[in-house]
Amino acid sequence: MPRYRVQFSPLFKAVTVDAGTTLLEAAARAHIAIDSVCGGDGICGRCKMIVTEGKVGGNVSSLLTREEIRQGVVLACQTTVESDLIVDIPDETRASDKVVIDQDAQRFRAARPGIKKREFEKSPLVAKACLHLAPPTLDNNTADCQRIRTVIEKETGIFSMQTGLKIIRRMPEILRKNDFTITATIGRRGGVAEIMDLEGGDTSSENYMAIVDVGTSTVVVHLVDAVTMSTIDTQACFNSQATYGREVTTRMIAAEKRGTEHLQRVLVEDINELIGALAHRNEINLKDVNAVVCAGNTAMMHFLLGIPTENIRREPFIAVTVDPPAFRAAEVGVKVNPRGLLFPVPGIGGWVGGDITAGVLATGLHEMDDVGMMIDVGTNGEVVLGNRDWLMACSASAGPALEGAGVQCGMMAHRGAIERVFVEEDDIRYEVIGGGAPDGICGSGIIDLIAVLLERGIIDRSGKLVDGSDLRVRSKSGQGKFVLAGKSRSLNGREIALFQDDIDNVVTAKAAIFAAAKIMLERLNLTFSDIDKLFVAGGFGNYIDVRNAIAIGLFPDLPVSDIVYAGNTSIWGAKLAAFSSEARETLREISNRTTNYDLMATNDYVEQFRQAMFLPHTDIELFPSVARRAPANHEAR
Amino acid sequence: MPRYRVQFSPLFKAVTVDAGTTLLEAAARAHIAIDSVCGGDGICGRCKMIVTEGKVGGNVSSLLTREEIRQGVVLACQTTVESDLIVDIPDETRASDKVVIDQDAQRFRAARPGIKKREFEKSPLVAKACLHLAPPTLDNNTADCQRIRTVIEKETGIFSMQTGLKIIRRMPEILRKNDFTITATIGRRGGVAEIMDLEGGDTSSENYMAIVDVGTSTVVVHLVDAVTMSTIDTQACFNSQATYGREVTTRMIAAEKRGTEHLQRVLVEDINELIGALAHRNEINLKDVNAVVCAGNTAMMHFLLGIPTENIRREPFIAVTVDPPAFRAAEVGVKVNPRGLLFPVPGIGGWVGGDITAGVLATGLHEMDDVGMMIDVGTNGEVVLGNRDWLMACSASAGPALEGAGVQCGMMAHRGAIERVFVEEDDIRYEVIGGGAPDGICGSGIIDLIAVLLERGIIDRSGKLVDGSDLRVRSKSGQGKFVLAGKSRSLNGREIALFQDDIDNVVTAKAAIFAAAKIMLERLNLTFSDIDKLFVAGGFGNYIDVRNAIAIGLFPDLPVSDIVYAGNTSIWGAKLAAFSSEARETLREISNRTTNYDLMATNDYVEQFRQAMFLPHTDIELFPSVARRAPANHEAR
Repeated sequence: MPRYRVQFSPLFKAVTVDAGTTLLEAAARAHIAIDSVCGGDGICGRCKMIVTEGKVGGNVSSLLTREEIRQGVVLACQTTVESDLIVDIPDETRASDKVVIDQDAQRFRAARPGIKKREFEKSPLVAKACLHLAPPTLDNNTADCQRIRTVIEKETGIFSMQTGLKIIRRMPEILRKNDFTITATIGRRGGVAEIMDLEGGDTSSENYMAIVDVGTSTVVVHLVDAVTMSTIDTQACFNSQATYGREVTTRMIAAEKRGTEHLQRVLVEDINELIGALAHRNEINLKDVNAVVCAGNTAMMHFLLGIPTENIRREPFIAVTVDPPAFRAAEVGVKVNPRGLLFPVPGIGGWVGGDITAGVLATGLHEMDDVGMMIDVGTNGEVVLGNRDWLMACSASAGPALEGAGVQCGMMAHRGAIERVFVEEDDIRYEVIGGGAPDGICGSGIIDLIAVLLERGIIDRSGKLVDGSDLRVRSKSGQGKFVLAGKSRSLNGREIALFQDDIDNVVTAKAAIFAAAKIMLERLNLTFSDIDKLFVAGGFGNYIDVRNAIAIGLFPDLPVSDIVYAGNTSIWGAKLAAFSSEARETLREISNRTTNYDLMATNDYVEQFRQAMFLPHTDIELFPSVARRAPANHEAR
Repeated sequence: MPRYRVQFSPLFKAVTVDAGTTLLEAAARAHIAIDSVCGGDGICGRCKMIVTEGKVGGNVSSLLTREEIRQGVVLACQTTVESDLIVDIPDETRASDKVVIDQDAQRFRAARPGIKKREFEKSPLVAKACLHLAPPTLDNNTADCQRIRTVIEKETGIFSMQTGLKIIRRMPEILRKNDFTITATIGRRGGVAEIMDLEGGDTSSENYMAIVDVGTSTVVVHLVDAVTMSTIDTQACFNSQATYGREVTTRMIAAEKRGTEHLQRVLVEDINELIGALAHRNEINLKDVNAVVCAGNTAMMHFLLGIPTENIRREPFIAVTVDPPAFRAAEVGVKVNPRGLLFPVPGIGGWVGGDITAGVLATGLHEMDDVGMMIDVGTNGEVVLGNRDWLMACSASAGPALEGAGVQCGMMAHRGAIERVFVEEDDIRYEVIGGGAPDGICGSGIIDLIAVLLERGIIDRSGKLVDGSDLRVRSKSGQGKFVLAGKSRSLNGREIALFQDDIDNVVTAKAAIFAAAKIMLERLNLTFSDIDKLFVAGGFGNYIDVRNAIAIGLFPDLPVSDIVYAGNTSIWGAKLAAFSSEARETLREISNRTTNYDLMATNDYVEQFRQAMFLPHTDIELFPSVARRAPANHEAR
C-alpha cells in the first residue's frame, strides 16, 4: 500500500500514513488534538480542515456549505489521504485546552442526553515541556538547576518544584550534550510539582498515560495520549486474583493468611500485561508512559498498594486509607517510566472506593439540582444518592455474575460476546459484538436473556427453570440449563447455555443491589419516584436494555428516559483526573462530602434482600410497568 | 552523689538530676524551653522560677527585688538542686514560640551590640505531635490515614501532607497496638509537609536535629533539641577530604579523576562520626535525630550530595544547583532517622554557598539601612556587600591558614589552642583555651602573633622573618621559624612555632580576602569609609582582636566599634532555618536577590591581590590608624 506524507500547517507537524487513512487519524498520529465530538462518525461537523495541496478521497459532507466546499474545506473524519498533502487546520478545529467530558462520548452515545457537558482546566498529572535554554556565560552564571527551573516556571506557570538527586546529578551532562535544548517531564504530586525526568532534544510529543479501572472481576486499561488527551487504545482482562476467591472478602482472608504481597503481585502483573500489550500494539515506548491513574474499590486499591485489608472486613469496617497520595508506579511494581507516577483516585470508605468517586464526577451527580442516583453494577454493587447539596453512598456484595464472571458461559463485553438477546418472529435471537459466531455471553446479554426467559415463562418468578417449558431447557449433571447456542453455532464448538446456578447468581446480584438502593432511599425518607435521573455504571456491555433490567428488578421501575447508561464511569472519571487538577480537586471534594453509609449498620437489609430475590420483586407494586406488561405471569408467590 | 527529683508545675514535667545541678539545666533536661538570653551567666535576669517545695543552693541574685526573694523567686541559672523540689515556672519565664537570633548570643557576646534582635515564627523542619485519636465505630468509620491526618491538621495547622507507602502500611497495627495514642513526626519539605514516622505512645519530647557547617577545612556539628530549640552540644573535626587536597579546586580535580562518590563518602563519614559522637555523649538515640541542616560552600554541598563539580571550576564557573531541595538524609548516607530529612541551605553561585546566605541571615546584613559588609574568613574567603535594597557577593581562594589548617602548629579553636597572643611586660605572651599548656595555635592566635611580630620588627612588611631580630627566631631545614612555646612548655612536648611558610600562607590568605573586598567596593563606586558595619564571620576562635586583624591588613581600617565579630554565622543561620520556615523563606529570598560577582570576570583582581601581599598593604594610606601607630616601621618598599 502506498504511503503519503501529510504536512499540517500552521503547526509544522508532519506524518507519513498509508493511503486511505482519514485526515482525522493522520492528525491524531501527528499528536494534534482535534475537536471531534462524534468521534469520527461524520455527524458533528466539527473536524473541518482545508486541503491546500494534494489529492484526497471520501465523501463530501452535507454539513459543509457550498462556499466551504469551494474553499477546499473537508471534514477530516470523512476524508482520506490519496497523495502527499498539505493541510491547513483552522484554529476553531483544534481542540481547546479544556478537558471535556464529551471526549469519550462516542463510546457512550446512547447516554449522552442525560449527562451535562462540563469542562475542566487542562493540567495533566504529567506534562512535558521542551526547553530552549540560554547557555551560561560569566554574566549569566545561574546554576544549571535554577536555569532549568526558571524556564519551566515561565513555560508552564508551575512554581515550587521538587527535583530528585538522581535527576540533579545528570543535569550538567544532559544540558551540555544537547546544546541546552532539553525536554522536562513534570509531574504533579500532593500539591507540588516535580521534575520527573530530563531528556535531550524535543521529546514533548511522546507523553502517555495509562488509565486503569481496577475491578474485582475485571481490570480495564485505557492508554491515552497526554498531549492530545485522546484515547489511543483499550484492553481488559479478568482480575487474576480470582484464584484467591471471586468475592472481595475471600481475597482479604487469603491476604491475611498468605500476605497482602501475594494479592498485590497478581494484580500488578495483570496491569503490567495490559499496559505492556497496549504499548507494544501502538508502538509506544513504556518509558514514555509517565502516569498511571487507578480507580477501584477500596480493597482493590489496598491490594494494589500492598496495604493490609484486615480491618475492612471486620466491624466497624475501617480502611487504612481512602485517599492514598500519588506514588511512584515503580514502588508497587507497575512497569512504566521508572519515575512515573501512580495516582489513586480517592474513595469514600472501606467498601466504597475511587471507582465510585470517579463515577460521581463523570455523571455529574454531585452537581445535580434534583435528586439523582447512581448504581454501579459490579462484583460489589454500589449505590450513590444525592445532588449538589448532599451525597450518600453504600455498597452491597453482588457477586460477579453481571460482569459475566460468575456465569459458566460468561465473558467480558468484547468481540464474540452475545451482548443482546431478544425475541423476533417468536424466536429467541441474539446479537454478537463484532458479528460472527458467539464465544460466550456478557452482562447485558445475560440480563436480556433472563428477562426473555421470564417473559416467556421459561423461568418462574423465583428464577427457576420450568421443566418442559421450552425445548432448549435441558439438564446436565442434575442441573437445569437453557441452551442459547448449540455447539455447531458457537465459535469454539462449546455450547453456550445459561445454567440454573448462573440464574441464581444473577438473581442474588440484582437483589443485593436493589435492596441497597431501597434501604438508602428509606433512610432518607425518599421513594424511587423522587429520583430525577438514574445513572447506571458498569462494564457489562456497550448497550444495556433498560426495560429488561427493570423487568428482572435490577433497576427500579422509572420512566426509561430517566435512566442513563453511562458505561465504565470509573475509567471515565479517572481519565478526567489524568488531564485536570481541577478534576482531581473535585474528586477529593466528592470523596470528602459523601457520607459512607454502611448497610451492616441497619437491621433491615437482610429482609429487604430476601424480598428482592424474586423477579422483579416480591412486592410487584414496586414495578407497575412490569405488572401492566404481563399481569398473568406476576402473581405473588 | 545524691540524685533528686524536680517536679515542674504547671507543666507536669519531672526529671531526676544530680545534686548541684542548676534549675536551668534541670529544665532543659525536662525539655522545657526557658527564656535565657545570657545563656546562664546570671546577667539577663530572665530565668525566674519559684521554688514552692524543697531546698536549693546557689547565690541570691541582685537582679531580684526584695519582694521577689520573699516569694521564693530565684534565677534558675544561679540556683542548684539540693533536695527533691517542686518548682513553679511563671509563664513569662518560658521561652516564647519565637525563634530569636539571640539564643546563641552567649557564644558571641562580644558581637551582640552590632546585631539586631530578630524573631521568626517557630515552625521546625521536623516537628513531633502526640495524637490522641478516637477509636473508630460504625458511625465514625473514617479510614485510619484520614483519621490521623484530620487530627494532625487540627493540632498543627499543617494541611496537604504526603505520606509514604511504608508508613501507610504500618498504620493499622500501630494505631491498634497503642490504643489509638500515637506520635507523628512531621517534616516540611519543598512546600509540603510529610508524615515521616509514626510511633506508639507519646514520644514527642524526643526530637533532635543536627546543624552542620560543612567547611572546606573544618566540619562543625551542633546537636539541637527541636522542642526547646536549645543547643545540646557541639563537636567539630577537620574535613577528611583534605587527603584529596587542601584547596577546593584540587578536590574537584580529584573528583573528576576518581569519581565524586569518593569525596562524598569521606565527607559523609566525618558528619556521621560527629553526629554519632554527639548522640552517644548525650544519650540520644540516632533515630530521634529527625533532620540535618547543612550549610557549606557550593562545592562542598555538591560533594555531600554526590553532584558533579566539573563546571564549577571551569569558566563560566557554573554550579549544578545552588538550591538543592530537601532530601532524605539516608539518600546520601547520613545516619540519623532513616526517613530523616537533609535540608541544604540555599547558596548564591558556584563559589558563594549556603554558608554565606546563612551568614547574611544571621548578621542581618539583608535588613540594614546603610551599607554593610560581611567577610567570611575560611579556606575560601567570601565577601558580601549590601543592605536591604541590594546584595552582592564574591569569593576568593584564601587557603586554610586562618582556620589553623595550613599552618604547621595550627589547630582548631578548641581546648589547648593558643587563641590570643599579646605583649605584656615587654614579652610575647599567650592565652590558651581552657587554660593549661598549649597544644597548638588557632586562627585568632595566628593573627595576633603576626601582628605582634610585625609590630616588634621580627617580621618585615613583606612578612619575612628578620634574622637576629629576636632570640626566638630560629631556622630549621633552611626555613625560618618563630618559636612561641618550647617543647618543655607545650602539652605534648612538641615545640609550637610559626614557620616562614605559615606566615606566607597567612599573608596570601589575607591578601586574597582584602583584594576581593576592595574590588567589590570599587565596582560599586564605594570606598571602605562607606561601610557602616563590618561583620566578620569564621570559626577561628571565640575572640578575634580586631586591631591586630587591621594591623596585618586582613580587615579594612574601620573604627573598631564598626567591626563585629559574629563567629560561625554559617551554623547560626542554619540553626534559624532548622527552627523556622520563615527563616528558610528568608534564606531563599537572600539567595535569589544576591548578585554573584565573579572575581575572574575582572582584570584588576591579580593586581589588587599583589598590592595586598604586604602588611598591612602596599598602599599604607588605606590603613591610616596603622600608619599612625608605628610610622617608623611602615615605609613602602
